Amino acid sequence: MSETTLYNYEKLANFITNLIDDGVYVKGARIPSLRQICKQHKLSLSTAMQAYHLLEDKGILESRVKSGFYVANRPSNTLATPTTKSTNNQATLVNNSDIFLEMLEHSSNLDFAPLGCAIPSADIMAAGKLNKAIARAARVNGAQHNIYTVPKGDLGLRKQIARQSLKWGQNISPEDIVITCGCTEALSVALKTITKIGDTIAVECPTYFGQLQLLKALGLKVLEIPTDAHNGIDTAALETALNSKKISACLFSSSINNPLGMTMSDAKKLQILALLNQYDVPLIEDDIMGDLYFGETRPKPFIAFENSDNVIYCSSFSKTIAPGYRIGWIVTKQHMPQIMDNKLATSLSSPTLTQVAMADYLSSSGYENQLRRIRRIFANNVDRMTRAIEQYFPAGTRVSRPSGGFLLWLELPYQIDGKALFKQALDKGICFAPGTVFSPNPEVDNRFANCMRLSCGHEWNEQIDKAIQTLGKMAADAKNP
Amino acid sequence: MSETTLYNYEKLANFITNLIDDGVYVKGARIPSLRQICKQHKLSLSTAMQAYHLLEDKGILESRVKSGFYVANRPSNTLATPTTKSTNNQATLVNNSDIFLEMLEHSSNLDFAPLGCAIPSADIMAAGKLNKAIARAARVNGAQHNIYTVPKGDLGLRKQIARQSLKWGQNISPEDIVITCGCTEALSVALKTITKIGDTIAVECPTYFGQLQLLKALGLKVLEIPTDAHNGIDTAALETALNSKKISACLFSSSINNPLGMTMSDAKKLQILALLNQYDVPLIEDDIMGDLYFGETRPKPFIAFENSDNVIYCSSFSKTIAPGYRIGWIVTKQHMPQIMDNKLATSLSSPTLTQVAMADYLSSSGYENQLRRIRRIFANNVDRMTRAIEQYFPAGTRVSRPSGGFLLWLELPYQIDGKALFKQALDKGICFAPGTVFSPNPEVDNRFANCMRLSCGHEWNEQIDKAIQTLGKMAADAKNP
Repeated sequence: MSETTLYNYEKLANFITNLIDDGVYVKGARIPSLRQICKQHKLSLSTAMQAYHLLEDKGILESRVKSGFYVANRPSNTLATPTTKSTNNQATLVNNSDIFLEMLEHSSNLDFAPLGCAIPSADIMAAGKLNKAIARAARVNGAQHNIYTVPKGDLGLRKQIARQSLKWGQNISPEDIVITCGCTEALSVALKTITKIGDTIAVECPTYFGQLQLLKALGLKVLEIPTDAHNGIDTAALETALNSKKISACLFSSSINNPLGMTMSDAKKLQILALLNQYDVPLIEDDIMGDLYFGETRPKPFIAFENSDNVIYCSSFSKTIAPGYRIGWIVTKQHMPQIMDNKLATSLSSPTLTQVAMADYLSSSGYENQLRRIRRIFANNVDRMTRAIEQYFPAGTRVSRPSGGFLLWLELPYQIDGKALFKQALDKGICFAPGTVFSPNPEVDNRFANCMRLSCGHEWNEQIDKAIQTLGKMAADAKNP
Repeated sequence: MSETTLYNYEKLANFITNLIDDGVYVKGARIPSLRQICKQHKLSLSTAMQAYHLLEDKGILESRVKSGFYVANRPSNTLATPTTKSTNNQATLVNNSDIFLEMLEHSSNLDFAPLGCAIPSADIMAAGKLNKAIARAARVNGAQHNIYTVPKGDLGLRKQIARQSLKWGQNISPEDIVITCGCTEALSVALKTITKIGDTIAVECPTYFGQLQLLKALGLKVLEIPTDAHNGIDTAALETALNSKKISACLFSSSINNPLGMTMSDAKKLQILALLNQYDVPLIEDDIMGDLYFGETRPKPFIAFENSDNVIYCSSFSKTIAPGYRIGWIVTKQHMPQIMDNKLATSLSSPTLTQVAMADYLSSSGYENQLRRIRRIFANNVDRMTRAIEQYFPAGTRVSRPSGGFLLWLELPYQIDGKALFKQALDKGICFAPGTVFSPNPEVDNRFANCMRLSCGHEWNEQIDKAIQTLGKMAADAKNP
């Protein structure tokens, strides 16, 4: 499965990129001609040309007329990655700032440069085929679908979702799946099932603000576990927290976390599962970005490993196909009866037509094609945005190297106040997510005051390029007023 | 508005029914001829004929060949109404029985006679036009709608919902409305906003099992207030409860409550509002049945009165247009910020296409026509079911006289165990809602053990007639074994 996710020209492009990164070809060096490379790799000329043009487009190669292809003098990967913040091992209630609501309000405003909301542009999503499916379902069987589904959700859809788990070598039963109103309801129902008000939940740091909002509404306390942009959760810190017996549950990303874009290794996941089993603490995993990996294989979620009985898996199609359809799901065996109690009490069931249409869509090969397409677009967007940041932002800016998805996390020089920058940017018609909204209690400990998250969910265009240029200029001015 | 909800023939039929109920025309008496009545009421012959045929169809009149119309020897209204149960003024956690899940499981099973689920048949709902609207929205603007709506929900839909409040003389602002995933999410979000775990909520008695399930999941205690099938909530008992300072909030039906079908007078609603204001206790009102009134005017919800600032209004289209669309809403001014916090944390936002389609549908005259149509169907179904109960059930059976909707509440002779009857009925392919699921803690106090709720949400047919006959026989056998 993994090998088929890349076309031959992409494999060749990766091969050459690796050689450059490893220093085999240095800046300004001439790389093998198209003819040579075709011979070496037994590829067609058109495949090699596609690879070279992709690398040219990414700014990795440059072509010189009648001379060939050279390693470009590109600045890419020159910026350091964000630092890992230590936390104080203190649980806190969520007390997020007014800036959070201000951000939410503006991030869906189409007049703003779309760097705030973690939602890909509608053009990139799979609305076309899905909307045909819903129109068909409404026309052909509409009256029949105008009833509540069974409490777990449409069986056809649950079968299709179960099928998805084959991608990571698992075989989930449709009976262990419950359809929810997006990943938010999945997480909300999961948290309600295994926690009570006042409990403490361990989360990654920085923490996705949607999770913070959820924990706030449920009256739960948050304990941040330091999370490295490369290696993920600090397991020593996690063990200390577990050992203090203060933790009722963990809420971690499966892969490609928000905002760092980091994916932990399988070994690390096994280590975390072992720790949680030792202390008998359940894990809720959020896999909403999992299908958007840039690597060769779909990263495994925690439930794919042994000894994951106490894991509740949550995901949705909001980042891959259809934010507007609000279809998420939970996978659990052990906690199913309580999950069902809570789902019934939260929203009874989810809409029927949207589920039927999604099942129809997933039963075609459309989803795999869609994923291949958007992974490519996002990888390119992230690359373009990174280069733009390198070009426009002041020295000392750090930027994440996401393993997938469409989010970049920036750490600006310490002098820069992200909140002031956010207000300034709004005045210029630019919306981003200020670092402060990724802290549970920024008034007490605003460790991400000089950070920001930028969304690369829209195809690169002049407005976005201009917005990054403007932001970079503002940041530079703030650094040296 | 109110006068236009009945056709002339229906007004005439009501006029004659009232004369019969008042004893002006006794059983077997000949009523005025069509010619006479046309003259008296200045109506066309066809209108009078429609009225007489309606009354004949309802079993109120019978025609004799070449002689005219006579008051039928019908048994209707001979059964007493259910008694009002006293409660123990003790708050209790919800501990509903296994029979609840068994009922849920079977009530959506189409192989069973559909007396269990409080969902009208799909044929009666307005799927046709609505499905055309969603197909159109998906085809024409699908990609554009594949985004999250603003947190409160699609503005077009909120405007249409605001317009509905004109029916009861109010003018609600779209800004005071939040779209939810059905009435269940509306109630869930409202409860989370104004209560905390362990709080006590005053409810009607019997209590709709969906509310009990919700209160259970939120860890809330229940205090039942005696509720009369004619007069509604016992305000003296409510005052005693409020005076004890144990009540954090009330959760009452606006009108046509489930299962009694009772609507309180405006005077009673004002009395309750005055009490709640005196004790500063908020009210969550559930108006899901409000549009299904059988009378001449739309009953007013609590928010339509003065001094209702501390009322949170919840409703949905699940009983009138589209259970499958899962569209509900909340109206509140005072509690909006906290409601929004909770809505964001529960499901972020609701699906977009379903909202856009519903707004499109509501902007036509379709909804008023649909309501007129289904009120007529439900009134007829309730009437037919009542007559069938009179015919088939044992002496001593009591039955409600709903003011709207499509539910009948039966109190059987005390010897009959509703739970045993429920199991027996399932074996015969019949599902109903046993009285026991309307009590919060039936193991301790099963005051509705000999009760049952029957749904009249499906057009009368032989299967239903047969099912009532079978149930009546079972009940008679259980009474005299």
